[in-house]
Amino acid sequence: MVVELVFVGTELLLGNIVNTNAQFLSEQCAALGLTVYFQDVVGDNRERLALVFQTALKRSDVVILSGGLGPTEDDLTKETVADVWNLPLHRDERALEMLTAYFAQRNRQMTENNEKQALVPEGAVALYNKNGTAPGILMERDGKTIILLPGPPDELIPMFQEQVAPLLRQKRPEIIYSVMAKICGIGESQAETMILDLIDGQTNPTIATYAKVGEVHLRITAKAETEEDAQEIIRPLLETLKERFGENLYSTREEETLEEVVVNLLKKNQMTLCTAESCSGGMAASRIVNVCGASEVFLGGFVTYSNEAKQKFLGVRSHTLQTHTAISRETALEMAEGGARQMGADVCVSVTGLAGPGGEQGKPAGLVYIGCCCKGDSVVEKFHFRGNRAKVRTLAAIRALDLVRRCIIKKERNTEGGR
Amino acid sequence: MVVELVFVGTELLLGNIVNTNAQFLSEQCAALGLTVYFQDVVGDNRERLALVFQTALKRSDVVILSGGLGPTEDDLTKETVADVWNLPLHRDERALEMLTAYFAQRNRQMTENNEKQALVPEGAVALYNKNGTAPGILMERDGKTIILLPGPPDELIPMFQEQVAPLLRQKRPEIIYSVMAKICGIGESQAETMILDLIDGQTNPTIATYAKVGEVHLRITAKAETEEDAQEIIRPLLETLKERFGENLYSTREEETLEEVVVNLLKKNQMTLCTAESCSGGMAASRIVNVCGASEVFLGGFVTYSNEAKQKFLGVRSHTLQTHTAISRETALEMAEGGARQMGADVCVSVTGLAGPGGEQGKPAGLVYIGCCCKGDSVVEKFHFRGNRAKVRTLAAIRALDLVRRCIIKKERNTEGGR
Repeated sequence: MVVELVFVGTELLLGNIVNTNAQFLSEQCAALGLTVYFQDVVGDNRERLALVFQTALKRSDVVILSGGLGPTEDDLTKETVADVWNLPLHRDERALEMLTAYFAQRNRQMTENNEKQALVPEGAVALYNKNGTAPGILMERDGKTIILLPGPPDELIPMFQEQVAPLLRQKRPEIIYSVMAKICGIGESQAETMILDLIDGQTNPTIATYAKVGEVHLRITAKAETEEDAQEIIRPLLETLKERFGENLYSTREEETLEEVVVNLLKKNQMTLCTAESCSGGMAASRIVNVCGASEVFLGGFVTYSNEAKQKFLGVRSHTLQTHTAISRETALEMAEGGARQMGADVCVSVTGLAGPGGEQGKPAGLVYIGCCCKGDSVVEKFHFRGNRAKVRTLAAIRALDLVRRCIIKKERNTEGGR
Repeated sequence: MVVELVFVGTELLLGNIVNTNAQFLSEQCAALGLTVYFQDVVGDNRERLALVFQTALKRSDVVILSGGLGPTEDDLTKETVADVWNLPLHRDERALEMLTAYFAQRNRQMTENNEKQALVPEGAVALYNKNGTAPGILMERDGKTIILLPGPPDELIPMFQEQVAPLLRQKRPEIIYSVMAKICGIGESQAETMILDLIDGQTNPTIATYAKVGEVHLRITAKAETEEDAQEIIRPLLETLKERFGENLYSTREEETLEEVVVNLLKKNQMTLCTAESCSGGMAASRIVNVCGASEVFLGGFVTYSNEAKQKFLGVRSHTLQTHTAISRETALEMAEGGARQMGADVCVSVTGLAGPGGEQGKPAGLVYIGCCCKGDSVVEKFHFRGNRAKVRTLAAIRALDLVRRCIIKKERNTEGGR
């Protein structure tokens, strides 16, 4: 089954935003075993959008359009699609209820232009948008399936995953099943080299490599008549990957993030966590807090950006800062141990480094020390990250979370070994 | 002049990579005053690529294709373009020299398949690639300009900037100039309602609305013979926007972020900042730290996720937590005042709320209190954010930064008034 992806928005043609939806939807379609031959980007223009839509209809079974569902005059995806098929727009009572509730909950008044979002083409179904105002739309006609999704990724992604993917899955005669092996601590080209022999001549299952920031994901996909059969096809390959990547492989569940793995490990071991961050500036803490239920294990954190804060709140010694500077193995160690002590946590991870741009005092931008004190045992690792300030900080936060994960696993192993 | 962008590569259709070239080339074209109506993405397939190229030729003056210029069998952009125009491929001696030099410089041997990269269609010009092996190609024919660029961004970007942009600039008679009015504290539809009369019947300058997470951006664009004339055309409209949006308009510089404005305001007023975050979990601190030079004004922050941490590090009274709970105006106030005191900062912003999912103790998810203590004057604002956990937290961090901005501006005004 061939899917065509159409992205609507003049902001894409002006380069105001990166089209991350294209990557997301393409990856999702591939995972569902659907073929994408074309992606199109077109502006908020009725005539040109109609042209693109008609072309897509001719050459594809499913057309997914994203963007242009909002309340403004520029938003005309729904209107254009309805026009092409000569369908009148009707007010959808359920969609209107959702909209009204959305504004009521936020104590905001719904302006008149917002009501336009409750209109759907005749015969179409509104898709619930729990993260925004514009409902999605699903239409089936002349053997074609048309899906309209809102443009903002935080609305599009859950709507696709929860409402669209199950529907597209049903349309496939055979089952496509995939698992994602998520890897942290190894670069993309190294990871690829490690599995070259597995990729060579692959047919069923297949492996595809995805380079993510600070991580590498390997998607293993199998086709079979039943999900059980597909799992059976995948299992030996997955075992091989687990052997080759060892502890670097942190999850085989697609939805599970590195921070979720960390929170789950803490819960399992009844440990509490705190953070002591300098250059990452709260980013590691923020990722942990984004996990539902983090409050069971995460006590809090320090953002000790100034040397004074490092001394006052973490007890880093002035002698250490003078002798070794703030960006050193010794400071990272005292930050981790001091943080754990001050917060009364079982585990504390510390980050101190030079995010850049530009080096300082003979130290290069990207030099970062990450420390972890786990139930009294401490370790510090040294990294040289490449990239701009934001990227160095992001990589530091990811590797900080990863170090917590590794330290807890090590603790688990030692405890088991000691029994 | 209309430009069409064609991106060639099956990896884009599989979602293996994000198409950052699309954003780069679109933005560059906009800055050059060139109009982009369509972007197309197609795989490494001769037939489908030919179809896309022919369609682009019909409706655009300039077609820029990127990707598919490499040495492998999958790389067939050049071959397909030559096919469509029935042009033979000739070896370009200059291109071959470049290639040979590239390999020699790296002490690598040039394999036979690499020589294919020195072939160019008859009448075409090779563009020098200083960062890779595949030369770009420039062709002019039947009044159309065709530009082929390599796919890797670190090859495409310099080649475009150094060799393609100057050429395209010559093709334009007039200057295009734009400014961005950045707004925080007002939603997209409300903002648009406020400027409907200005958008109506606009020709030169024009206004375009961009909804960002927690912000609205308005791009005002003018065409003129000189940049000064364009600025003159924009000025009255910009003044009108400043009047209508008042303090909600935080910047008119495209590159300037909200956190940069906050850091600059702090520097200007010689104030220091700290953060005291609960549900935002360090995200406000992290955004501040991402600004180069934040260390001059940002001392550090507390992530007081547990009630104990709120008491111990910020001095929130246990009576306050018991009577009003952690998610209350009173707690936000004590967090801000306690944070400023403990860190010794002039300004402290606090965030406490329920990121969700799900409400607690009769309080809905998305309920967030943001406090700011600015040189002894405190204020707390109550928000109802909508969205998933990550979105609520992001919006809370943005509005926290925005509250700091407003408090400093208020302080500035009062100081001036008191003089």
